[in-house]
Amino acid sequence: MPSHRPLTLGTVSAIAIAVASGVHASDLRDRALEMFAALPSTVPALNDNIITDEKVDLGKALFFDPRMSASGVFSCNSCHNLATGGDDNMPTSIGHGWQQGPRNSPTVLNAVFNEAQFWDGRAADLAEQAKGPVQAGVEMANTPDNVLATLNSMPQYQEWFRASFPGQDDPVTFDNFAKAIEAFEATLITPAPFDAFLNGDDNALTDQQKAGLDLFMEKGCSACHNGVNLGGTGYFPFGLIEKPGADVLPPDDRGRFEVTKTADDSYVFRASPLRNIDQTAPYFHSGKVWDLRVAVAIMGTSQLGAELSDAEVDDIVAFLGALTGKMPEVIYPLLPAETSTTPHPTGEVIPN
Amino acid sequence: MPSHRPLTLGTVSAIAIAVASGVHASDLRDRALEMFAALPSTVPALNDNIITDEKVDLGKALFFDPRMSASGVFSCNSCHNLATGGDDNMPTSIGHGWQQGPRNSPTVLNAVFNEAQFWDGRAADLAEQAKGPVQAGVEMANTPDNVLATLNSMPQYQEWFRASFPGQDDPVTFDNFAKAIEAFEATLITPAPFDAFLNGDDNALTDQQKAGLDLFMEKGCSACHNGVNLGGTGYFPFGLIEKPGADVLPPDDRGRFEVTKTADDSYVFRASPLRNIDQTAPYFHSGKVWDLRVAVAIMGTSQLGAELSDAEVDDIVAFLGALTGKMPEVIYPLLPAETSTTPHPTGEVIPN
Repeated sequence: MPSHRPLTLGTVSAIAIAVASGVHASDLRDRALEMFAALPSTVPALNDNIITDEKVDLGKALFFDPRMSASGVFSCNSCHNLATGGDDNMPTSIGHGWQQGPRNSPTVLNAVFNEAQFWDGRAADLAEQAKGPVQAGVEMANTPDNVLATLNSMPQYQEWFRASFPGQDDPVTFDNFAKAIEAFEATLITPAPFDAFLNGDDNALTDQQKAGLDLFMEKGCSACHNGVNLGGTGYFPFGLIEKPGADVLPPDDRGRFEVTKTADDSYVFRASPLRNIDQTAPYFHSGKVWDLRVAVAIMGTSQLGAELSDAEVDDIVAFLGALTGKMPEVIYPLLPAETSTTPHPTGEVIPN
Repeated sequence: MPSHRPLTLGTVSAIAIAVASGVHASDLRDRALEMFAALPSTVPALNDNIITDEKVDLGKALFFDPRMSASGVFSCNSCHNLATGGDDNMPTSIGHGWQQGPRNSPTVLNAVFNEAQFWDGRAADLAEQAKGPVQAGVEMANTPDNVLATLNSMPQYQEWFRASFPGQDDPVTFDNFAKAIEAFEATLITPAPFDAFLNGDDNALTDQQKAGLDLFMEKGCSACHNGVNLGGTGYFPFGLIEKPGADVLPPDDRGRFEVTKTADDSYVFRASPLRNIDQTAPYFHSGKVWDLRVAVAIMGTSQLGAELSDAEVDDIVAFLGALTGKMPEVIYPLLPAETSTTPHPTGEVIPN
């Protein structure tokens, strides 16, 4: 489990060098490899969840099936849309009964490489995460029992579960539902120009992107946004140096404090993973900032105490563009038809 | 445009023959070919809308893009989901502001072969149809201006429109938006066992399906449900012989009367196209009947004045299963990312 990691700006910003085209690619790569890692070329192994083709196919069906919600309106893909960078391009998602969720929907792409899931890291892995929105009253508003009744009403789903979890007497379980979705999501890996650069291709980044990468490390962004996903591994206070405005950091959402109930964790959030960030506006947990340039500038003042120049912001944004990768091709699934025993959808909103 | 066609039961039910395995396949086919036609092997030509690969790809992107709705929640695919038979498996769709639509969402599959669109036939073709839900306050609640502003804010969409409508000075128009969607939808054709039977394969239908086909013609179902789509071509009063209950035929929805304002058209609806019908419960414009067997029995009493036996219903339902076809493979699209000029989504509900 990830722990609270304080910023260590001093160790990072010590190296002050000329930016822009003067940066030597192999020096830059050497320094980058101390902070970041390229995506692996294969799907990563999961904890207690062997990945098979059958399980990935089942997970894809479940991911796209709106009947996993009480209303029949929302699937996982509604808020983590694979057509639009793995999120929904809204400040916060609209869910069951037209209720608005509390935080911006994070991308599912490459999420398998995050050390914990959700903005506050309250789920250890994607299987645990997958169980959350299905049951959340403001999201899919369903129950495990109703999910299982729905799945068991369709012989094709029963068959897919048997093929995905061989040897189990009763494979249609909520745990296996979550594991299948996790297996599918683990395949959603998007190799980007930055990976090619880390892997040795000097020409994978433009000069401006190289200058942006240099700035990203030199200014200290990479103190929090590091690792495979340039984020997603540690927790940090939002507004470390200067609190952003209440629109961006609403006072009533204290972040990881809600999980740990520790004063130190007030307004602490998981550092956002930054892959495909230019596809997933609006930004921050509040989703109130639509322009990546503005988001970068806010990070400069709130986290680093640095007033970034327009040119510096441009360079960093250019570098962030090099994190946008190639989506795996997803064939839209064909889902089993309901039967006479399938629970009917209901849009009814049940008060808490 | 289709006109009101009275039932002509006499001419159809004159031939009374033994059903079940006694039916001779080539006789049955000859009779069937007088009422029905197999799907063509190629995508049909559209009225004033040349189909190109570029236009189909653009149409697919638009069909799946939730940013075509005001809220960013709904795409065409929300209510015409290609994963679930081209509809949404709800009585009536949930739309903007969690409002409920007035009629059951019909399947988009093979809809290009319907003579007119919607339950009341108020749109002549799929391009005209596509403009409706986008603007309907209870569905996508958008405006043509906002759709065009959204599309124009993304250079990739501009490029796709230029490639799809070459030679036009300003190709990003609401008409072209609709035409691209129509072109994509025209490709959604699902050849079924029944087509193979019509095309000469005696073994494409089981004996029970052949008996059901025989009954379907002999009892008079095919008087309204005929042609390529076994329906979708003419208008008929629902409850011709006996009005079904108010749950199935709500008194406040007078069907085609709303379009023509002609007393004769009271409770008149387009005969439902029946391809893939076993994938698209619940049934009728009210969407209140979940079991296809029940729907067939209601049709018997309300339209034909015939109390069908359980065995007859079973045979007809078996035949209807032979109308479920093979979906074309759809690769899930990758949509352009928003830019700083893209209109923001809004879930606000504006009263009429």
